[in-house]
Amino acid sequence: MKIAHFTDVPSEPVTVEGAREATIRWLIAKEDGAPRFYMRLFELGPGGQTPLHSHANEHEVFVLEGDGAVWRDGADTPVGPGTAIFVPGGEKHCFKNRGEKPFRFLCLIPA
Amino acid sequence: MKIAHFTDVPSEPVTVEGAREATIRWLIAKEDGAPRFYMRLFELGPGGQTPLHSHANEHEVFVLEGDGAVWRDGADTPVGPGTAIFVPGGEKHCFKNRGEKPFRFLCLIPA
Repeated sequence: MKIAHFTDVPSEPVTVEGAREATIRWLIAKEDGAPRFYMRLFELGPGGQTPLHSHANEHEVFVLEGDGAVWRDGADTPVGPGTAIFVPGGEKHCFKNRGEKPFRFLCLIPA
Repeated sequence: MKIAHFTDVPSEPVTVEGAREATIRWLIAKEDGAPRFYMRLFELGPGGQTPLHSHANEHEVFVLEGDGAVWRDGADTPVGPGTAIFVPGGEKHCFKNRGEKPFRFLCLIPA
């Protein structure tokens, strides 16, 4: 069993094109023995966002902190702590920080 | 895309033997089109716990609120908000509320 506070897991910059002020922490990954899906924590600073893109794999997201938005069907939908978001494979999406504090969310993906 | 605050998802009592003061909300489930893994939110009231058990499927857990503990190798390890827990398949585990407020955590499982 792995038990780790997210602040004890190193954060890395998200280097994908179109990402701004974004970092990622791999909380539960292949190296931990996870066989089927992985848990990552994203942090977007003020003005930050993930790229507007789509891909075959689904996302399962849960917002932890801050004031953000998710792009859906051409418009931004505000989201805050306690909101779950399911992004099916193939659907265009992006996450943005709308506030002045960090916007943090979990994003789980299949292996 | 599904966007839902956890409080808008119905909670159901956990009826498994050995569970106490425990409810579950299926935030992202098969019915939402999730193909490979599901997101649930558990809430344990004061004195609450999940059963001490093991099973073939892994758990990926993230603590949201409250003062809890996870049973590992015969002892309780205190856990609080921001802590991620990976429970490999086959490992005995249980979650407990150690406080007077609700203890809430996400628990994701394979389909």
